[in-house]
Amino acid sequence: MRKILIIGAGRSASSLVKYLLDKSDKENLEVIIADISIENAQKLARNHPNGKPIALDIFHEKARKEEIKNSDIVISMLPARFHMEVAKDCVEFGKNLVTASYISDELKALDKDVKDKGLVFMNEIGLDPGIDHMSAMQVIDRIKDQGGKMIMFESFTGGLVAPESDNNLWNYKFTWNPRNVVVAGQGGVAKFIQEGKYKYIPYNKLFRRTEFLRIKDYGRFEGLANRDSLKYREIYGLEDIQTLYRGTIRRVGYSRAWNIFVQLGMTDDSYTMEGSEDMSYRDFINSFLPYNPHDSVELKVRHCLKIDQDDIIWDKLLEVDIFNAEKKVGLKNATPAQILQKILEEKWTLSPDDKDMIVMYHKFGYEINGKKKQIESNMVVIGDDQVYTAMAKTVGLPVAIATLKILNGKITTPGVQLPISKEVYNPILKELEDYGINFTEKEVEYLGYNPHNLSA
Amino acid sequence: MRKILIIGAGRSASSLVKYLLDKSDKENLEVIIADISIENAQKLARNHPNGKPIALDIFHEKARKEEIKNSDIVISMLPARFHMEVAKDCVEFGKNLVTASYISDELKALDKDVKDKGLVFMNEIGLDPGIDHMSAMQVIDRIKDQGGKMIMFESFTGGLVAPESDNNLWNYKFTWNPRNVVVAGQGGVAKFIQEGKYKYIPYNKLFRRTEFLRIKDYGRFEGLANRDSLKYREIYGLEDIQTLYRGTIRRVGYSRAWNIFVQLGMTDDSYTMEGSEDMSYRDFINSFLPYNPHDSVELKVRHCLKIDQDDIIWDKLLEVDIFNAEKKVGLKNATPAQILQKILEEKWTLSPDDKDMIVMYHKFGYEINGKKKQIESNMVVIGDDQVYTAMAKTVGLPVAIATLKILNGKITTPGVQLPISKEVYNPILKELEDYGINFTEKEVEYLGYNPHNLSA
Repeated sequence: MRKILIIGAGRSASSLVKYLLDKSDKENLEVIIADISIENAQKLARNHPNGKPIALDIFHEKARKEEIKNSDIVISMLPARFHMEVAKDCVEFGKNLVTASYISDELKALDKDVKDKGLVFMNEIGLDPGIDHMSAMQVIDRIKDQGGKMIMFESFTGGLVAPESDNNLWNYKFTWNPRNVVVAGQGGVAKFIQEGKYKYIPYNKLFRRTEFLRIKDYGRFEGLANRDSLKYREIYGLEDIQTLYRGTIRRVGYSRAWNIFVQLGMTDDSYTMEGSEDMSYRDFINSFLPYNPHDSVELKVRHCLKIDQDDIIWDKLLEVDIFNAEKKVGLKNATPAQILQKILEEKWTLSPDDKDMIVMYHKFGYEINGKKKQIESNMVVIGDDQVYTAMAKTVGLPVAIATLKILNGKITTPGVQLPISKEVYNPILKELEDYGINFTEKEVEYLGYNPHNLSA
Repeated sequence: MRKILIIGAGRSASSLVKYLLDKSDKENLEVIIADISIENAQKLARNHPNGKPIALDIFHEKARKEEIKNSDIVISMLPARFHMEVAKDCVEFGKNLVTASYISDELKALDKDVKDKGLVFMNEIGLDPGIDHMSAMQVIDRIKDQGGKMIMFESFTGGLVAPESDNNLWNYKFTWNPRNVVVAGQGGVAKFIQEGKYKYIPYNKLFRRTEFLRIKDYGRFEGLANRDSLKYREIYGLEDIQTLYRGTIRRVGYSRAWNIFVQLGMTDDSYTMEGSEDMSYRDFINSFLPYNPHDSVELKVRHCLKIDQDDIIWDKLLEVDIFNAEKKVGLKNATPAQILQKILEEKWTLSPDDKDMIVMYHKFGYEINGKKKQIESNMVVIGDDQVYTAMAKTVGLPVAIATLKILNGKITTPGVQLPISKEVYNPILKELEDYGINFTEKEVEYLGYNPHNLSA
């Protein structure tokens, strides 16, 4: 039997493991599921005869090397910062490697060794990064092959709650790491290019510069800019494109309300607050408002942020109970972001029957035979339940499919890479369709930035 | 003759050197002015027979040690990060040291060695830090000596343009390092305590949370919070004070207009802009605004920041020429902050006849015999010209006075210290009066935070 070693059995590994176990008889696979917690590994193996859950501490060098040496291919689902130990062993023992993480500079530096040994190190093959690369490159390459010239590319992805589980005013629940949601947008300025003009959005304006998008059968969404769209020019071969913009999808109205937290300073993760443990939620928000001996916290918030009496934002704030004077934060030396996360987790955690949803949306503008054209393409995936979530499916299935294709010699080009070549994305996108992960594409009139031809 | 070694002959050393040279005959002093540029040193020495300008590179260890060894006392006017080399030599050769900089952790670590050798290392004895410490502690100690209990301390300092030279709409010119003005407030959240409540102001609200102050004969000013007011509790012995707030002074309206730059992202110093060199001022501001094929940059700014047609802010923006489409930035790989600084320097640089002004304002609230009382105290210093500026006088004279008093054995308590003991601040504040640096103090009704006794 051929041994596939999966290191890291977190939430995103469920669909990955299921795919491989389902194919294990036919493909003659033993799926070794290694995690620091044997329980995590056992849960995913579900007593399948071809599944072998093991406890593995990746910092236990001997055990790690032993497992990698004995495997035929390795999948690392560890947090990105832990990939390197695994990657070096894979080079040493001549094993192919698959990850869903961004290629780090450190990993990139292994490229020559990987090529010398004829190995395939496939990365960024989850959802985002992953399906975004593949689905975008498929259309971009097709346009280029037809002789078209790309002039615009916009791409948005979001992890949301499924419509049937969407029952709060924010139309949002935490379907992934809540911390990333709370600190989103803080790593640096959002930069992109529109019609040849470089644009920069500072954090304090990020949640007020959203744009609307509409997806058939799912209604309206909003997109807000990601940090660095410009690096995709090189990755996608779009060096002289006029417009390149990548972003995150939320339901309409989320960002405008979230902006309240940003403006008040409640998402700051850079300092700890005095006496955070014994603070009430009301004390927490009041810390960001001017002192006054009798004015209410509510009126101070309305005044500070100019919130009208009938603004729906207000109901969103009430819904997350931010003005509660009884509930205590209960976190020692916590940052504002940690406190806000705790408050939101009480309201935005999925209920046992809730399902998540992944939405991806691309817009391609191009010129062909002197004419401007536009293609819109989107993907919506709903989770089955809280194990086989939309996130687990969209992250794990491309990893699983790629792994089997590498093992079966269908993907062979060696090197540290991401899935932007036809050899890789075509068969994977094709097979993903069998799992309900597919794109709806339509050609629309080229709209650009002045769709109604307005003049001054 | 007794040798005073001054290392660093920048703009802030002029009044310091003059003071010492003026006293040099009577006090039997040789004033050695050492700078990496001999011209700088010569300019300050003005051919005075007791002045000795020398060229000194502080990283030339042998020369540095030689000069320090041959001196009787050392003043370091170097940028704070260069003090340590000098300080270590002073310990080695048993020389007293005076600086106007904050005590670094590294310098503090020398305290035991300094005390063992019976040396005085006096720091934070310029303007801010310096005169602020001394003038505050004089009042605080007096209140405590009378049996009073401090309940509130607010303190503001600003470097401004003198009223006779104040001829722009911002009522502001660069009188010191422009870079510090452009990035002001970005080092971390502003935190303070008001009536026992901890308050935090994020950067994006900092310039909208100003408070007004009035100084007799000089009119109204505004104060905005400094980064960390809380550390002064320990320094000033105000551990259980209810209100402690330190800030920066500007003329009324400055902060509200500056906030435009903050909101747009033009003060960001964390990334460089694409094509900054060939950008016009208009391109620069447009980089922070949404793309539109025909709307003007002006209207986009007004809309983005909700600036009414008749708002005076607008004239301030026009005055600094920020919409100019002809003028080029001319700086390669520049950050937004560097570009903004360049644009403002064109308008806010002092003319040859302009004078600067230093304003300091303290508010002390205390309880004595069951009654609440309040003292307000302020200092205004106008520069003589562009050599003997208000900044040079208020930074340099306390350094000079302290140096002579240490040399003459009037200040003797050893250790790495700042001027918060009566032995130090009383004689120095007294002598500063001879140079027009004095505080006007008045007792007012205790106003606290509800001066008009308003109720709900």
